[in-house]
Amino acid sequence: MSIQKEDIEKAQQRIQPYIHHTPVMTNQSINEMTGIQFYFKCENFQKIGAFKIRGGMNAALSLSADQLQNGIATHSSGNHAQALAYAAKTLGIKAYIVMPKSSPQVKVDAVRGYGATVIICEANQAARETALNKVVAETGAEFIHPYDDYRVITGQATCVKEFLEDVPDLDVVITPVGGGGLLSGTCLGASYFKPSLKVYGGEPEGAADAILSIRSGKVEKAPFIDTIADGLMTTLSEQTLGIIKELVTDILLVSEEEIIAALRLVYERMKIIVEPSCVVPFAAAMRNASLFKGKKVGIILSGGNVDLTKFGTWFPANSETK
Amino acid sequence: MSIQKEDIEKAQQRIQPYIHHTPVMTNQSINEMTGIQFYFKCENFQKIGAFKIRGGMNAALSLSADQLQNGIATHSSGNHAQALAYAAKTLGIKAYIVMPKSSPQVKVDAVRGYGATVIICEANQAARETALNKVVAETGAEFIHPYDDYRVITGQATCVKEFLEDVPDLDVVITPVGGGGLLSGTCLGASYFKPSLKVYGGEPEGAADAILSIRSGKVEKAPFIDTIADGLMTTLSEQTLGIIKELVTDILLVSEEEIIAALRLVYERMKIIVEPSCVVPFAAAMRNASLFKGKKVGIILSGGNVDLTKFGTWFPANSETK
Repeated sequence: MSIQKEDIEKAQQRIQPYIHHTPVMTNQSINEMTGIQFYFKCENFQKIGAFKIRGGMNAALSLSADQLQNGIATHSSGNHAQALAYAAKTLGIKAYIVMPKSSPQVKVDAVRGYGATVIICEANQAARETALNKVVAETGAEFIHPYDDYRVITGQATCVKEFLEDVPDLDVVITPVGGGGLLSGTCLGASYFKPSLKVYGGEPEGAADAILSIRSGKVEKAPFIDTIADGLMTTLSEQTLGIIKELVTDILLVSEEEIIAALRLVYERMKIIVEPSCVVPFAAAMRNASLFKGKKVGIILSGGNVDLTKFGTWFPANSETK
Repeated sequence: MSIQKEDIEKAQQRIQPYIHHTPVMTNQSINEMTGIQFYFKCENFQKIGAFKIRGGMNAALSLSADQLQNGIATHSSGNHAQALAYAAKTLGIKAYIVMPKSSPQVKVDAVRGYGATVIICEANQAARETALNKVVAETGAEFIHPYDDYRVITGQATCVKEFLEDVPDLDVVITPVGGGGLLSGTCLGASYFKPSLKVYGGEPEGAADAILSIRSGKVEKAPFIDTIADGLMTTLSEQTLGIIKELVTDILLVSEEEIIAALRLVYERMKIIVEPSCVVPFAAAMRNASLFKGKKVGIILSGGNVDLTKFGTWFPANSETK
């Protein structure tokens, strides 16, 4: 199923009443320091604290009355779990969320707080799929995959459309890339609403699967997984890879040190809380500053759901601002 | 010298080209949790990361051409130092900032980064005043006190005026109280622009001088100083006390635990970075929820200049969100 311009327009209208039109922030000192004109689309201020509500809500609102009766289901330990739980609460339907037992209690509580049924399973892919298949078979709930789902990708595509409405003269947009839902949606949105817009994906060196996948043309695993960007550890899917490899300008890698430095800059200069995963695009722009000098560069700050007790690890007592 | 309505209006026009009209944020989950309609005036997004630029800029812009030639001076280890340094840079004049040698290097660097001359002195009040008097005698620079100065108070009063322009139907506004510049300015602004608006000051139990001072009618010292709200440790001045005791509705105290809990809520739910000093009003509203139930309560989030390496202390690894 290929996603058309009209699909994105309809998705935007469909989800608009339920989500925030998030603000775009700029920061003079960061611009002066880098010689780049940055525009930050603050999806950390979005409902549930992340862009994932766009895809989750669009998928839920795409269901027929019949399907709605049985509710929705997914497996996720992250923001997609909260997105579906919130969408279900808003629509007055049931949500069944399979979460690995390694999930932080605070995330499990947040999902339950929206009234969703949480099914805890072992922390491996096979156990997640088994538990999900079981709950779907028992309830008839509609499975909504975190990214390998055209309704989800279409919902994520509304973010760049909204961004371009507020900043039409963007030259570049950079998103994080994990499973590729946001990046593929952004590629599609850009191709329909501003074909000249260059779209990059920012990826941690410690989860470098997307860069390999667009080179080989098939879904590859990362050579190793070691990153604080915990939202970006998954591989692409056939569907997201298909869109990304056709439309993306490039994938840019960043180190862990660069992620921490970018996090520090955003916290100190912009005074906003963002997830490590979501500063990866900003870190990528900083590392490749010569590519972007003098350009208007849009960064999708994809989310702000952090565990505050991690702060001490990211910014230890002896660390310093450069 | 008494501050008139027109003085505040003129100050607003005077400083407007140099400062941000800061956004007002709301948060549905905090409102649902408390039964209070909160409006947060985000001065953490202000130039230099704090409201202090309002007073500092207004004072600097009030100088005559003659006075401007000699520059401005103050003693401060906090946001007022940055405010004067930034104002001086903007106006192309000199700034002399006396800072105690206990000042964090990052703050000294920030002030120097604006091109100000920093004079390091011993960390006591007498040394600060001696160093300041010396630099004023040598340079002819105009001393601008952090709060005991009608030009500064008038500048701070523009914050509540702007707040009321955006949210005219506020019932209550709460500010932090340290030296009383913001609280006295807010009291004056409210009295001129919305006399029915109730104005409260939020104060740490570990720096409880303002509450004693308005009871006794004279400037009192806190019984003890022990708080993470490091911007609120100073006493009032005759001038700020005079305004506050006449116009304030009440001073509300909060414990250290309440400050940390409020900080956690703002970080987790609102995704913004604020100083411990600046969540004291929000903590005070939470503690006294029955006073404010169903009301529209404005909180001035006064600043966001934090040392990130403190995060580990505020949110240690075993701490939990309730």
